[in-house]
Amino acid sequence: MSDYRAPLEEITFALETVGGLRDWDSLPGFEEAGEDIALAVLEECGKMAGEVIAPTNRTGDIEGAKLTDDGVVTPAAFKAVFDAYREGGWNTLASDPAFGGQGLPATLAIAVTEMITSANMAFSLCPLLTAGAIEAIAAHGSEEIKAKYLPKMVSFEWTGAMNLTEPSAGSDVGALKAKAEKQADGTYLIKGQKIFITWGDHDQAENVVHLVLARLPGAPEGTRGISMFLVPKYMVGEDGSLGARNDVRVVSLEHKLGIHSSPTCVMSFGDNDACIGYIVGEENKGMRNMFTMMNHARIGVGLEGVSVAERAYQHAVAYARDRVQSAAIGAKSRDSVTIIHHPDVRRLLLTSRALTEAARAIIYRNVWALDRAHHSGDVEVRRLAQGEADLLTPISKAWSTDIGVEVSSLALQVFGGMGFIEETGAAQFYRDSRIAPIYEGTNGIQALDLVGRKLNADGGEHWHALIAEMRTFVGGLDRAMAGSKTTLGEGVDALANAAETLFANGFEGIVDTAGAATPYLKLFGTVLGGYLLARQAVAAERRLASGDGNPGFLQAKITTATFFIEQLLPPAIALLGPIKAGATQLMAMDEADFARG
Amino acid sequence: MSDYRAPLEEITFALETVGGLRDWDSLPGFEEAGEDIALAVLEECGKMAGEVIAPTNRTGDIEGAKLTDDGVVTPAAFKAVFDAYREGGWNTLASDPAFGGQGLPATLAIAVTEMITSANMAFSLCPLLTAGAIEAIAAHGSEEIKAKYLPKMVSFEWTGAMNLTEPSAGSDVGALKAKAEKQADGTYLIKGQKIFITWGDHDQAENVVHLVLARLPGAPEGTRGISMFLVPKYMVGEDGSLGARNDVRVVSLEHKLGIHSSPTCVMSFGDNDACIGYIVGEENKGMRNMFTMMNHARIGVGLEGVSVAERAYQHAVAYARDRVQSAAIGAKSRDSVTIIHHPDVRRLLLTSRALTEAARAIIYRNVWALDRAHHSGDVEVRRLAQGEADLLTPISKAWSTDIGVEVSSLALQVFGGMGFIEETGAAQFYRDSRIAPIYEGTNGIQALDLVGRKLNADGGEHWHALIAEMRTFVGGLDRAMAGSKTTLGEGVDALANAAETLFANGFEGIVDTAGAATPYLKLFGTVLGGYLLARQAVAAERRLASGDGNPGFLQAKITTATFFIEQLLPPAIALLGPIKAGATQLMAMDEADFARG
Repeated sequence: MSDYRAPLEEITFALETVGGLRDWDSLPGFEEAGEDIALAVLEECGKMAGEVIAPTNRTGDIEGAKLTDDGVVTPAAFKAVFDAYREGGWNTLASDPAFGGQGLPATLAIAVTEMITSANMAFSLCPLLTAGAIEAIAAHGSEEIKAKYLPKMVSFEWTGAMNLTEPSAGSDVGALKAKAEKQADGTYLIKGQKIFITWGDHDQAENVVHLVLARLPGAPEGTRGISMFLVPKYMVGEDGSLGARNDVRVVSLEHKLGIHSSPTCVMSFGDNDACIGYIVGEENKGMRNMFTMMNHARIGVGLEGVSVAERAYQHAVAYARDRVQSAAIGAKSRDSVTIIHHPDVRRLLLTSRALTEAARAIIYRNVWALDRAHHSGDVEVRRLAQGEADLLTPISKAWSTDIGVEVSSLALQVFGGMGFIEETGAAQFYRDSRIAPIYEGTNGIQALDLVGRKLNADGGEHWHALIAEMRTFVGGLDRAMAGSKTTLGEGVDALANAAETLFANGFEGIVDTAGAATPYLKLFGTVLGGYLLARQAVAAERRLASGDGNPGFLQAKITTATFFIEQLLPPAIALLGPIKAGATQLMAMDEADFARG
Repeated sequence: MSDYRAPLEEITFALETVGGLRDWDSLPGFEEAGEDIALAVLEECGKMAGEVIAPTNRTGDIEGAKLTDDGVVTPAAFKAVFDAYREGGWNTLASDPAFGGQGLPATLAIAVTEMITSANMAFSLCPLLTAGAIEAIAAHGSEEIKAKYLPKMVSFEWTGAMNLTEPSAGSDVGALKAKAEKQADGTYLIKGQKIFITWGDHDQAENVVHLVLARLPGAPEGTRGISMFLVPKYMVGEDGSLGARNDVRVVSLEHKLGIHSSPTCVMSFGDNDACIGYIVGEENKGMRNMFTMMNHARIGVGLEGVSVAERAYQHAVAYARDRVQSAAIGAKSRDSVTIIHHPDVRRLLLTSRALTEAARAIIYRNVWALDRAHHSGDVEVRRLAQGEADLLTPISKAWSTDIGVEVSSLALQVFGGMGFIEETGAAQFYRDSRIAPIYEGTNGIQALDLVGRKLNADGGEHWHALIAEMRTFVGGLDRAMAGSKTTLGEGVDALANAAETLFANGFEGIVDTAGAATPYLKLFGTVLGGYLLARQAVAAERRLASGDGNPGFLQAKITTATFFIEQLLPPAIALLGPIKAGATQLMAMDEADFARG
């Protein structure tokens, strides 16, 4: 078992230094989102996450979600979790007040979601997918659909599910085959099977609102022929009351490596040719809707990396401060000490801490850019912020989920043999975290998105701006962070050099670019993470000098940033050569020679 | 489900190029171990591994080992596995002919063990621990004990178990508390509890022979007061017949992340004060015996990294050649292709292949050094070979098991969403492989062994010799591998520089050395792996030029080596700075500041 303590000091500091916390209330619509409100929200959520939700993580893993004749049954303890989440209004935080939301910044909501996800990642997927569905409906749905569905989804009485994947249409969404046919009354009949549908059915909400991608008769091939439909589990009357069951059912649940209490459903639509759907947006424009959902979900999945890493780190620290084994290296005393005194155990812990804090900083910055993109009164600020948010999204998703897996593995290692025993809890983080690099677009797809769409957006304006910002910052480094100046500068140079190389490849060099996408994303995330930690360290130094704040925490920020740049950044900088080497070696082998004879 | 095809072409090539295959029969005692014999053995074992053992991997994982009133029950399919392994004489391969062994090279045995471990890692632990026990008994046991136990253990009618760990004595073996008291008849009464005892009990052998570490009354504290005892499950009569049950029993089985069909037992000795043990070696000299067992087992555990990586890689290649998704990047045709055509999927596969082949090369070289150390007629050859084998052992163990986890994760990623579904089989490799960096001395302990004992052995003679060998080789690189010369040379220089730094630290810098141990081991393993792959590539080039061998395979060796040095070596070289930075940042934080407030 592992406890979870919401890292409020760290979260607040990250929000202040890279998440714009002190500027939130300067944006139109966020006038009420002052620091006092934010801190109160965070504290209350932290309490709920630690006390109500966190204890269900291990029991939920053991119990799992089960398919019965009445649909999916979730672990017994989940009722209290859904109740607390709903009653606390946690789902309403960043939603539109027109539908019952509180209209607070998304950056505040992401910090809240971080804590809930640390407490129980499997549960957190239900709010995550519901939020994605809310965004898609809010952006593209008709007024009637919005009025009928959004209030209940915002309040979390009804939950949402995304139905994209089919057996032959995973990364290649355009290959999907589910069908939709328009009826005389303007609704559509939906028919097809979808796989990997997270929280596609369950017993904790009155209704499940499916967003389903399907094709109309004669629709263009590929992604230009996809439309999005809203398919409720229970039909909804004019007055909002629930009616008959729609013709949609769960065929089976997957037996997964982790997130056992999150039901992963195979869904069948229209077995009896009576599955009613409502179009969301225009016919054949479903891909645009899907991106609305997915861009939200991608950052949310990235956050899962941070959340699981944070909890796995806390768990490992607690063990390392408790477990006594061997004398301290180089000490005169031969008495055994707690293992946190051993340098190689500290390396595991400090690596975990540094990666987690870097990923958190990246994601908070990403979402703060989204808040500005959506709420700034200045159109140019909005444009630039949107460009930055788009650029950072694949990094938030892929880099953070990669470190989520890495940190859960490092944390497991701290436990030694006990880490391999399920009872300890460390193994669950290792299992749960492993899905995040896969779903909502594999990390390979994210890297291709980064080097394809994002690097080229607006002629490269957004990565140029970010690099310029980093160069200015590095140029000014002195005092405690002066020792990091050279390495961090090399990192920024390597990132710029790599970006210029890939940018210049153009269509002729597209295979080289695709082959270099993954190491490039890793370089980008690591340099950005080092930069944001260094900014936090400079802020910490300033507070230390002014006697403002907890010295132990602030000094730890400086140590963590210095460690990251000294120990973790150099191997990433060394990816520049591999990135520039092109794809010759990658493409050299005949596919048959990969197999073993 | 995943099939396994023994990679005979690769294994044979590795044995020939870095495992001394063509020189085996020049060593006294190995005159019969010619290439023909070796190839026949490998082929027969590959057949058994693929056809008999491999299909039990997934069923064994599902069924698991279970504790009943009659002791541990293993999966039903294991009877055929034990029978085939026993009847094929596979356990006798490298054992002493005096006890029924075939006296073949350990390097041949390691290749055989590789295949069996790929086929079923959980099963392979039973032969591995039996072999460790055989070595310890053969080296330190009395003639009577050897005659009574070894023939049955070599034939695998009886299996062995190592009983070291106690709840408060893991990495710090010297802290153990199990007791032994000498009786009038020369036997000892053993009392205590041991945890994490792999294959500590089961239903597939007539007897289980425990080697148990315990303390005599008044023994010195720490590791200098430990003795080793042989404790049979069933007492053995003068004629070798089995008698009454000894007072040793299984208390419980652990519920683990992986290797579910390998029973991990809590063992209790002497509940009724009637557990009879026989001393192995001298009183208070048990640590030496333990190292005899462990050095063997450490290489065997390192091999698990290679074995699981190989199977996970094959599994991923098969999927990547079958799964159709998206058009090829940069191609004119918009038709979907198998995903092995996508550069980023090739990166996953080629990284997996390169890491696996490098780890295999390291381990084969390590064991070939052991064969020379044990069998050469020249005392100086034996001394140097033993020094090399000792130096490489922590690298074989830690680097290979780290890549085992990495490759199983990369292979899982190739499957996308399917990788997270247990049915596919990829998840099992990810779970199973994760124990190997932990047991038989965590990888942190291995790194400390490397920078502590091994780097300093014989005044640094052995790492100096290895670096000199690599420099000579790099100096001669030309033709196909000329492009790798600079980077590989930088790698060797970085390794030498790092070794000199740590060597010079001495006792005053012991904390810096300990803090740098893990990145140093990573640098060492990666440079050594790159070097051995380059040597293989040069050999492949020579064979290609002479028209000898399969061109596809030989060309793939060159591509794999080039890829490793171009793409995977630079980040490891960049660890030089972090290694030289010392432990200041690691030790800066107060332990309380690691925790979240």
